Amino acid sequence: MIQTKIVTIGDELLIGQVVDTNSAWIGKQLNEIGVVVKNISSIRDTEVDILNELDDSEMDIILVTGGLGPTNDDITKETVANFFDTELYLDEEYYQSLEALLIAANLDMNPLNKAQALVPRGCIIVPNSKGTAPGMHMIRNNQHYFFMPGVPTEMKQMMLDHIIPQIRNTFQLKSVYHRTVMTTGVPESELAIKLESWEKQLSEQISLAYLPNINGVRLRLSCYDGDESLKDEINNHVNYLTHNHSDFVYGEDDQSLAEVVGKMLVERELTLATAESCTGGHVAHTLTQNAGASLYYRGGIIAYENEIKIEELSVAAEHLYEYGAVSKPVVLNMVRGAVDKFHADLVIATSGIAGPTGGTEDKPVGTVWIAVGNRHRIVTKKLQFGNSRERVIRRTTMTALNILRNEFLKK
Amino acid sequence: MIQTKIVTIGDELLIGQVVDTNSAWIGKQLNEIGVVVKNISSIRDTEVDILNELDDSEMDIILVTGGLGPTNDDITKETVANFFDTELYLDEEYYQSLEALLIAANLDMNPLNKAQALVPRGCIIVPNSKGTAPGMHMIRNNQHYFFMPGVPTEMKQMMLDHIIPQIRNTFQLKSVYHRTVMTTGVPESELAIKLESWEKQLSEQISLAYLPNINGVRLRLSCYDGDESLKDEINNHVNYLTHNHSDFVYGEDDQSLAEVVGKMLVERELTLATAESCTGGHVAHTLTQNAGASLYYRGGIIAYENEIKIEELSVAAEHLYEYGAVSKPVVLNMVRGAVDKFHADLVIATSGIAGPTGGTEDKPVGTVWIAVGNRHRIVTKKLQFGNSRERVIRRTTMTALNILRNEFLKK
Repeated sequence: MIQTKIVTIGDELLIGQVVDTNSAWIGKQLNEIGVVVKNISSIRDTEVDILNELDDSEMDIILVTGGLGPTNDDITKETVANFFDTELYLDEEYYQSLEALLIAANLDMNPLNKAQALVPRGCIIVPNSKGTAPGMHMIRNNQHYFFMPGVPTEMKQMMLDHIIPQIRNTFQLKSVYHRTVMTTGVPESELAIKLESWEKQLSEQISLAYLPNINGVRLRLSCYDGDESLKDEINNHVNYLTHNHSDFVYGEDDQSLAEVVGKMLVERELTLATAESCTGGHVAHTLTQNAGASLYYRGGIIAYENEIKIEELSVAAEHLYEYGAVSKPVVLNMVRGAVDKFHADLVIATSGIAGPTGGTEDKPVGTVWIAVGNRHRIVTKKLQFGNSRERVIRRTTMTALNILRNEFLKK
Repeated sequence: MIQTKIVTIGDELLIGQVVDTNSAWIGKQLNEIGVVVKNISSIRDTEVDILNELDDSEMDIILVTGGLGPTNDDITKETVANFFDTELYLDEEYYQSLEALLIAANLDMNPLNKAQALVPRGCIIVPNSKGTAPGMHMIRNNQHYFFMPGVPTEMKQMMLDHIIPQIRNTFQLKSVYHRTVMTTGVPESELAIKLESWEKQLSEQISLAYLPNINGVRLRLSCYDGDESLKDEINNHVNYLTHNHSDFVYGEDDQSLAEVVGKMLVERELTLATAESCTGGHVAHTLTQNAGASLYYRGGIIAYENEIKIEELSVAAEHLYEYGAVSKPVVLNMVRGAVDKFHADLVIATSGIAGPTGGTEDKPVGTVWIAVGNRHRIVTKKLQFGNSRERVIRRTTMTALNILRNEFLKK
């Protein structure tokens, strides 16, 4: 098995000022070509820590990100040169390509940019189409070292355009097969019980992982070096889950719920609008993160103030007075008002107490009303999402989209 | 110096299905009490990998998260018991507290929950007020091991309520001092040049780090075990940056730009509304993520379709026809329309091509118009944010908020 590790360099990672998202992305890309990452390490920006990680004879591939930026706090390149008993030199060819790039972008060749063309002797330069810092590939004793900038867009194109193809050409890779099913609305332990009898039927060579995050729980089925029958088995399990638990299983892999709902709207040639209070634009943002949302999303209103609910969505003032803004009559009003306003086939409406203040004994922080529908039919739901503002906003969005999805499934 | 490392357990981290946000959070908390994390490692959910990380005589503190969940893919507890040459037993006291918790929540004591009360002999149980899995504290040869669940809310309360106080009581901690200044709108290399002469004046014991992310670049000034004069120097530098570069320096530490703008609105007793096209609700969401947004945010409209721009914001149809939706006249119209609609003192309006499609030669993907103001004065800006949909949306939001902030600074 090919031994691989990822090293991310930067004090900012260790003191928690930056979350390392690069490693997860790299891990995922490698996993798809059958390279299993054994270890991810984040280390400080010091020579001794960097040398310590580079000096690892167990590894066939070491991928390093960070520490190649133009500013003065980066010492990676000098350390790499030391580690390989060589020196930095100005690569004339790279320098010229850099110059051309800067001229095209109407920028000056300042000393910081010029220093980018310094690389250790013996390295193969990995081109950077999104920035000025070159990537570097060093080989010694059949160990492959790849050094990349920490800026995600620059790192990603280097991986996709150069490093992944290089790894595929160099190593004999074993096969990996997995599929992931996305669920929402059911907590992990409840889900495990719902799926207990199904889980017992899995072959021993298939592993199942529960991967919870703020939006739901993903279920990953994997096998390594499996034959076709194992892959078929995984496929059958995915089909089973998708068909028999469609109320909470909404898709596969990294499909977002908004994407799935968007596709359903396009297929049915229906349009959607939003009328939000507690989610403050998050439902709209979640929908419009998807390219192509303009095919079905007409627009939305954030009726944060009660006055706006009355004026813009024709919410009855007496309903607000009698039941409060977080109530079934008000979200019903909001749907009807928004259908008219946006000439939309369907509307999602939300009203709740996102917190941390504004709760009462009757309606504690986290109480949310959702309504989804149109003039003919509206589904409403009352929920309790606890006392984290972020969680209330996100769960409300996911639940509202899932209600809409389940409405489509019924027909 | 106290040697500390963080270990996160889970195959899902290594294959990139989950981004490790726990480590950054833990690193930050420790840093605040003067504990510098030397290493963060993510490893697979296997006995050999876990044992390998636990067996580290260099470390005084080892913090482990993950692998304590109720489902079957977790083997951490057995491995911990092996490592400490002990066995798992059912802790009666914990079991009873668990039972009480489940009864209160109207849930059953299922076998998965019962297994949570199994812990290695000799461990000190760290209570979990947010879930069912207990934390564990083991001590051997003056090394302190803390095991926590991977669920962020559970891990966080254990750290804050028990583990941080425990570390403070056990170790003599050295002092650390840093301040971080938040900037937006200026790329890292340009920023480095703008600040070059200032940077040269920093004392040698003060380190400066540039920390770029999608919202801007943070500048962190740090000193370890420094005397008062060094701290004063850092404070003076922060004042200098805040006052002399206020156009792009918007705040400190982890203040968000939306928070800063919100505070300015409250101080001036002004209200704000939004009229969004390309940002699709993201400006509103960014504003309303802040608790207390209801003090100044009245509401907003997402006018995704041109028809909505005309009907709801009184955008002139001939302007849309003549100049297109992404144009100065249209964003000016949008501000004026939204001021009337929401009776707001100020409005932010956006219109752009978020991509990946919809670009033309004249207006390529990434072209954005922003307008900020009211009936009396409107500032407009045309920008180009490139071809990533996410980046176009986020940068547009940041730029719009920064334009508003700069307007307040002028007065």
